[in-house]
Amino acid sequence: MNEILEKSDPLLDRLKQVVGAGHVVTEAEALAPRLIDWRKRYQGAARCMVEPATTAEVAAVVRACAETGTAIVPQGGHTGLVGGSTPFEDGRAVILSTRRLNRIRDLDAANNTITVEAGCILQHIQQAADEADRLFPLSLAAEGTCQIGGNLSTNAGGLNVLRYGNAREQVLGLEVVLADGQVWDGLRRLRKDNTGYDLKQLFIGAEGTLGIITAAVLKLHPKPREVATAMVAVRDPAAALDLLNELQEATAQSVVSFELMPRLGIDLAVKHVAAAQDPLANRPEWYALVEVSGGSGDGDLKAALERTLMEAYEAGTVADAAPAENAAQREAFWHLREAIVEAQRHEGASIKHDIAVPVSSVPAFLDRALAKVRDMIPSVRPVPFGHLGDGNLHFNLTQPEDADADAFLARWEEVNAAVHDIVHAFGGSISAEHGVGRMKVGEIQRFKPPVEIEMMRAIKHTLDPQNIMNPGKVVEV
Amino acid sequence: MNEILEKSDPLLDRLKQVVGAGHVVTEAEALAPRLIDWRKRYQGAARCMVEPATTAEVAAVVRACAETGTAIVPQGGHTGLVGGSTPFEDGRAVILSTRRLNRIRDLDAANNTITVEAGCILQHIQQAADEADRLFPLSLAAEGTCQIGGNLSTNAGGLNVLRYGNAREQVLGLEVVLADGQVWDGLRRLRKDNTGYDLKQLFIGAEGTLGIITAAVLKLHPKPREVATAMVAVRDPAAALDLLNELQEATAQSVVSFELMPRLGIDLAVKHVAAAQDPLANRPEWYALVEVSGGSGDGDLKAALERTLMEAYEAGTVADAAPAENAAQREAFWHLREAIVEAQRHEGASIKHDIAVPVSSVPAFLDRALAKVRDMIPSVRPVPFGHLGDGNLHFNLTQPEDADADAFLARWEEVNAAVHDIVHAFGGSISAEHGVGRMKVGEIQRFKPPVEIEMMRAIKHTLDPQNIMNPGKVVEV
Repeated sequence: MNEILEKSDPLLDRLKQVVGAGHVVTEAEALAPRLIDWRKRYQGAARCMVEPATTAEVAAVVRACAETGTAIVPQGGHTGLVGGSTPFEDGRAVILSTRRLNRIRDLDAANNTITVEAGCILQHIQQAADEADRLFPLSLAAEGTCQIGGNLSTNAGGLNVLRYGNAREQVLGLEVVLADGQVWDGLRRLRKDNTGYDLKQLFIGAEGTLGIITAAVLKLHPKPREVATAMVAVRDPAAALDLLNELQEATAQSVVSFELMPRLGIDLAVKHVAAAQDPLANRPEWYALVEVSGGSGDGDLKAALERTLMEAYEAGTVADAAPAENAAQREAFWHLREAIVEAQRHEGASIKHDIAVPVSSVPAFLDRALAKVRDMIPSVRPVPFGHLGDGNLHFNLTQPEDADADAFLARWEEVNAAVHDIVHAFGGSISAEHGVGRMKVGEIQRFKPPVEIEMMRAIKHTLDPQNIMNPGKVVEV
Repeated sequence: MNEILEKSDPLLDRLKQVVGAGHVVTEAEALAPRLIDWRKRYQGAARCMVEPATTAEVAAVVRACAETGTAIVPQGGHTGLVGGSTPFEDGRAVILSTRRLNRIRDLDAANNTITVEAGCILQHIQQAADEADRLFPLSLAAEGTCQIGGNLSTNAGGLNVLRYGNAREQVLGLEVVLADGQVWDGLRRLRKDNTGYDLKQLFIGAEGTLGIITAAVLKLHPKPREVATAMVAVRDPAAALDLLNELQEATAQSVVSFELMPRLGIDLAVKHVAAAQDPLANRPEWYALVEVSGGSGDGDLKAALERTLMEAYEAGTVADAAPAENAAQREAFWHLREAIVEAQRHEGASIKHDIAVPVSSVPAFLDRALAKVRDMIPSVRPVPFGHLGDGNLHFNLTQPEDADADAFLARWEEVNAAVHDIVHAFGGSISAEHGVGRMKVGEIQRFKPPVEIEMMRAIKHTLDPQNIMNPGKVVEV
């Protein structure tokens, strides 16, 4: 049946002419993993997956789709958490995979730039930078799989935002295939350029709804000569904030990561994840994993970190601290932090949030949001953790012990809504780093001013009048 | 005559109702300085200047103009260098001054943010941050006069871009009055927010052509505990680049400023400007003014700077260096750097450029551009200086000695075109930090891909369909 349909489908024939028959994928088995999202919340269908190898091929694919009014769902590593790269159930869209656009086109160490194609895996870019004695700082859990095109299209955050900014801040230039198949070569390698509207900013974080990013010029940094890490028992989230600001001043803003973790997160990690160990005694309620990098390489940074921790200990904001004495200890601390996500899975279902509030509002937000969810579900087990330095918490709630997982998950929307209302009251964001995708298209409309939604719609309509670029994601038209 | 016109003008009557009669300025004497640009290249005219004091008043002014199809020219400190805030000669536009929108609405030290209105003078924002033990890093020559609304609308650069980024990088949120008079409240105070298109980026650097920025949330930073400065004799621009990269690595990217200056610039400064002194002997061809900031406050940063300079001396890239031993010496070095602009005025006319190329291309660009202008005007006296760390040079040409100033200036466009062609060949920008305004509307069209100009026009048309927001600037519709 599939074969017959294919043979009679002029669009598929044309796509095969563009990319070669072997790169228009229609076999159910090969397509299956591209039709369901990472968290397995959305199961879609697609006409085919097309795998162009060059920007010109992407442009030809988009032209073919534009002429037939066919929806295009761009897909990189397909590791997104909000269904942004998963096609809808109607099966009419073409998935455009960027995986073959995987060349590093240029690395200019003296200019501190690297020019990469959208399908380059994040880790490969990190490695290429490292081999040139440079740092590409974007780093997140999926880095071995995710592709830079997706990172830029979702304005990815991750672990080093405090020091180096979000994905947006890494970009100097973009190459984009527009909705009519035209190629915009905006691959500038400049630190300053005030010759008109900064159009690249529109495509960063647009999740493929305005055009397809095919290549980018990214900033590189010098490799830090020294990294110093400590696991710290903080009195409470407010004390953690004080410590963060003191550390920023004492180390001239060298804080790369400042991750907050609650007692329960540590307990679950130690209980369920191999080699996860708690380096602190006396079971403190709140932990901060702190990392600074830079320095001149003669230990001054570690000394500054330890001096600041000692002052904080004397001031009562810090109850205990374990500096990492070597690389193995540093890795063990990070292993504990990363184990929290996995550990929650062993305790049943979780209701998740990816929220940000002003950094100064984190303590008050936590008070209110924790009280609210405990009011809604008395024996819920909250594990709020994450990037305190960015005001970004993964406010995750593990189901009560012995509760029914499905009954708990049935309250996802209700709990989300209540938490998001509190986030909004603090002027916060209901999607700090994961994006809107399919999951939050409706929810953002509850909070954004109508004039902002209208502007988004107007820009979408201007750049994609046929609504073929990842339609239904980010903003409804 | 003027009085009669006023009395019969329903728009002026309405504007007076909105802002009070005293804030609709029509007197020739009061208007005169608002009708000519800073460099006195453009002399315009205007129907009036209106001075709203609140965002609501700005919105009411824009609505009145929108309903009558009246052009609006937003004006802050009016210190721009490309005619962006100067009205055209036809006299039909209304100037909207932001000077009364001058409140600091909020300063949250724990969140490291300050919320300011568009008319706040840059220096006042720096001072407010300083009083809260924070740093607002944007710094440029006009900082005592320019307003933050203009800084953001032109994406201002200045002296600290290397460390802290352009004006764009300072912004977390914006409040904007749109072309139909609606107010968009996008005053977020968040480090992360991925809930849709990042619309604020469109208004930053748009020079008031898409809407009027009325307020902004800006990032603050910890005050650096230490600043170390040195005047350095570099072998040539390529050696300066090597030194820059070595310094960035040795100080963990603490380089705030890296300014290149040629022999002639130093000579003219010493000759013409009071208290400008050359701290180096042996008359080197190229100088770099280098400043690093941060550190832990115990002199480690100065030590790292001096160690790196010593290594560079041994490697032959640096011929001589004078570290600033105290604040007075540091000021004297900066005085010399700033004296270069003034000094050129004493030597007659100058043809100026504000260009950027990839940092790694600066030496090759200088070779070619200097050869070209010397070929065009054999005894021209080039004084290329500026922000080498950003690849941004003010490639300024002083007229030949004893030449006729007007005859020299008559070649402005011809020389600009030749230099810009070379800039373009290096993938550079013909307006690195000053913007497009009126001066470069035509010139950017020579270099930008047509598809980019088309996108700019489409976005302009979408957000300002009547073309009343600073029409004729940045992009022609």
